[in-house]
Amino acid sequence: MKYFTQIVITLLLAFTISSCNNKAEETKESTIQSTFNLTIAKEEIIVANKEFMKLFAANDSIGLSNLYTKDAKFMMSGVPAISGTKNIQSVFSGIMNSGVSSINLITVDVWGTENLITEEGGLSLFVGDTEVDQGKYIILWKKEEGKWKLHRDIFNSNLPPK
Amino acid sequence: MKYFTQIVITLLLAFTISSCNNKAEETKESTIQSTFNLTIAKEEIIVANKEFMKLFAANDSIGLSNLYTKDAKFMMSGVPAISGTKNIQSVFSGIMNSGVSSINLITVDVWGTENLITEEGGLSLFVGDTEVDQGKYIILWKKEEGKWKLHRDIFNSNLPPK
Repeated sequence: MKYFTQIVITLLLAFTISSCNNKAEETKESTIQSTFNLTIAKEEIIVANKEFMKLFAANDSIGLSNLYTKDAKFMMSGVPAISGTKNIQSVFSGIMNSGVSSINLITVDVWGTENLITEEGGLSLFVGDTEVDQGKYIILWKKEEGKWKLHRDIFNSNLPPK
Repeated sequence: MKYFTQIVITLLLAFTISSCNNKAEETKESTIQSTFNLTIAKEEIIVANKEFMKLFAANDSIGLSNLYTKDAKFMMSGVPAISGTKNIQSVFSGIMNSGVSSINLITVDVWGTENLITEEGGLSLFVGDTEVDQGKYIILWKKEEGKWKLHRDIFNSNLPPK
């Protein structure tokens, strides 16, 4: 009986310590999740922008529209917000057909968390080697299936209207 | 000796459970800290926008500029980003002098955390009772000393240039 009691107590202790360790592991995991590195996220956004510039320069409006979330909004001057992959693709197609051959994006600052980053940046539009417009933008990036996608994209020109 | 062993084991168990509870409490605390309520934050942003509209309608460009952080950027079309309380106040003063008597802001969506909210919204400018412009905006709000302040403010018109 004495040994039985000891076994029961030992099992109890083992179970308690084990469940305690589980909690410790959960705590550790949540700490890891919250140790978000904004500097790394900024680098990821810069890489995503490079992909954007590359696709634009390659006249790939379909590829560009796929960088946006399905319910993204492209918020350009002169028209209400444009939503939906197909509509965003049409807009890029139109911009390319207007003669713009490349876009340069420069990240200025980022704020956010694991799955949502707000980016401030500067942009330039080129026709060949000639800069035809300069502007500024805010993009809200959303991480979907491990990839940063543009969710809200608003920009305007720094130059006075012609 | 049997009772002594039992006391030691009981103490061991009690200590283990107690240290385990401490971990559970820590976990609970960190859960409370991260239980951020976006719906409440959205209401707070709507209230902050009401204050903005009220100050604009009262021609209070100084009050408006104080709704912005010290290092805020006001990103309007036609000029590079405007930074600094005094410069932002001058811009509002200029907009008021141009005849715009009131601004209407409508929050569409918000994203973010305790101290940073990205807001998508729609805006209308009025001269008297006449709507003279319609647009869209993204504002990055930053909580400073318990108050939501505009940190980045970018907008553009939905109407084609005149």
